[in-house]
Amino acid sequence: MTERFSFRLSTTDGKARRGEITMPRGTVRTPAFMPVGTAGTVKAMYLDQVRELGADIILGNVYHLMLRPGAERVARLGGLHEFARWPHPILTDSGGFQVMSLAALRKLDEKGVTFRSHVDGSVHALTPERSIEIQGLLDSDIQMQLDECIRLPAERAEIERAMELSLRWAERCKIAFGEQPGKAMFGIVQGGTEIDLRQRSAAGLSAMDLKGYAVGGLAVGEPQDVMLTTLDETLPVLPQDKPRYLMGVGTPDDIIQSVARGIDMFDCVMPTRAGRHGLAYTRRGKINLKNARHAEDHRPLDEESGCPAARDYSRAYLHHLVRSDESLGGMLLTWNNLAYYQQLMAGIRAAIEAGRYSDFMAETSEAWAKGDLPPLG
Amino acid sequence: MTERFSFRLSTTDGKARRGEITMPRGTVRTPAFMPVGTAGTVKAMYLDQVRELGADIILGNVYHLMLRPGAERVARLGGLHEFARWPHPILTDSGGFQVMSLAALRKLDEKGVTFRSHVDGSVHALTPERSIEIQGLLDSDIQMQLDECIRLPAERAEIERAMELSLRWAERCKIAFGEQPGKAMFGIVQGGTEIDLRQRSAAGLSAMDLKGYAVGGLAVGEPQDVMLTTLDETLPVLPQDKPRYLMGVGTPDDIIQSVARGIDMFDCVMPTRAGRHGLAYTRRGKINLKNARHAEDHRPLDEESGCPAARDYSRAYLHHLVRSDESLGGMLLTWNNLAYYQQLMAGIRAAIEAGRYSDFMAETSEAWAKGDLPPLG
Repeated sequence: MTERFSFRLSTTDGKARRGEITMPRGTVRTPAFMPVGTAGTVKAMYLDQVRELGADIILGNVYHLMLRPGAERVARLGGLHEFARWPHPILTDSGGFQVMSLAALRKLDEKGVTFRSHVDGSVHALTPERSIEIQGLLDSDIQMQLDECIRLPAERAEIERAMELSLRWAERCKIAFGEQPGKAMFGIVQGGTEIDLRQRSAAGLSAMDLKGYAVGGLAVGEPQDVMLTTLDETLPVLPQDKPRYLMGVGTPDDIIQSVARGIDMFDCVMPTRAGRHGLAYTRRGKINLKNARHAEDHRPLDEESGCPAARDYSRAYLHHLVRSDESLGGMLLTWNNLAYYQQLMAGIRAAIEAGRYSDFMAETSEAWAKGDLPPLG
Repeated sequence: MTERFSFRLSTTDGKARRGEITMPRGTVRTPAFMPVGTAGTVKAMYLDQVRELGADIILGNVYHLMLRPGAERVARLGGLHEFARWPHPILTDSGGFQVMSLAALRKLDEKGVTFRSHVDGSVHALTPERSIEIQGLLDSDIQMQLDECIRLPAERAEIERAMELSLRWAERCKIAFGEQPGKAMFGIVQGGTEIDLRQRSAAGLSAMDLKGYAVGGLAVGEPQDVMLTTLDETLPVLPQDKPRYLMGVGTPDDIIQSVARGIDMFDCVMPTRAGRHGLAYTRRGKINLKNARHAEDHRPLDEESGCPAARDYSRAYLHHLVRSDESLGGMLLTWNNLAYYQQLMAGIRAAIEAGRYSDFMAETSEAWAKGDLPPLG
């Protein structure tokens, strides 16, 4: 087992990259999708199942874990891996995004951000240094800088101010993180959809020689082509030999399009959240199990899937569970969705290795567009 | 595989009975606990897990299934076993209990009961004949007569009227059920805690020569000793060579006490419902995972259990999941609880076989009374 965090690009196909991130707790095959384990659990799943689906790494949330059960408590219990029974790599976000989206009464200044917990109203402070400290207490393998995520649309001056602040916070996080050969701290490119700001952010972070780079603040409501153009213009500014992580993205189509532009890592609540709302991701596109057309359909979601949830349960049963708000519905659809996302990533990796990524994209999109099986006679 | 429903008593120890119910879909080792699968799913569990815990049979609810997805629909989909992916025996209750506890606007007469669905307000009718028809559409292996479950306390005259009506409905259910050698229809003894009414009910049902007998309308709030006295006085009136099922019971202590009086079958929502409310049943008694004493307790619920939920997850993690209202909390505690109930039944069966049931009861009660592990530190 390696002692050092490292990234190796094994193949490229156009701008798409096939690589491996190696660290003491394991290897992450890229492009990778990280299931979201917000509060130390991937909702409605046993982590053993998540692993069996092929996930090399999961994501945890500093914001949620600092509020409950608390970072110091997790540390006393042996760290997040031990606590949640996931001995493989974990990436933690810094809390910045959730502070802006979930918490109330935010006060932000150069030093950091003060906010009120959405759980119990208690007041907490997060600085770049404290965020890294928390991620250390959690024993996270890949830690993210604290950044300021502003809501879009916003004035250019406001976007620029937040981007510049995030750059200064990256520097402070780098210092706080120090030398930890087996782990990594990633910077986060900000700048909204202002291309020159994005490029300045990427250049500023690159100059810090970090172990990896994320692109934050995208897929927050802008059209997909705006997001992809931003990637097109930003990624060339980042070093080729470091992993690139597109935060909070996205739909299967967002993923294949972003891989084509050189993204290596993704996380998103879509497969888990959609699963709890009756939606199934499949190779034939997204299927709404609430729809009455499934009520007497004895066919499984995907008879060719290796996932029992996709292969062994009838659509009629899934429809019944979803309509009746039975927990097994969310359990089975989350399982199906994470299986599909991991299957998609495996297909992406194989296609890049085979030098046929653009064909893979075309075939995959075509199957989605063709849509679901016709309804039963 | 046998073609006929049959019951064989293999050993008795005092009044406790060790037996086997054999039917085409499998054998039920008695005393048996049937996990409750209300609407075609044992909440928060995969049925594969339920099977692995040692359950030979599960229970389904006519009331819930007739409303959603509908009995005719289940029949078109191949029956409840096929629909829910449980190829083993299923017992269905008749709907009588839920009509009285869940539905609104009940109108009951000699013919049957009319009620309004708690799901969507639609009006439905249930007669003895329709209940048996529905249970046939579900393809249930053990079907229950429709009975009238009244709320206690009640006037003796009212208890007597409902008991007599239930006897007449048993007769109609028997006729509606007809000759089905591979399946069974059980009668239900009613009569509140009026011993002579219970005995008349039991005698009336015995005269019908049914394949099994249930005791209904107990554990509805009366003290445990009243329930046990009722069993003491009622069970001798039932034939020895037929299975006896105590409906909706109960706590682990209710179960061991009732087995000592000659009960063979149980069902109860306690292990599943308690699991969704942060409570764990263990050999050391009931444990409330919400309690702050577990917040930093790295020990599992029961290090000697064969169930991963009991053995592999720390109390601290379970506490966190329960406090955070994470679905995995209910999944793990339900799993633990059903494992404990099945482990209890296996212990009961082994003790009867070994002729040491009273010792087993004493040891088991003593371990519960001794209580949980002392808090850490």
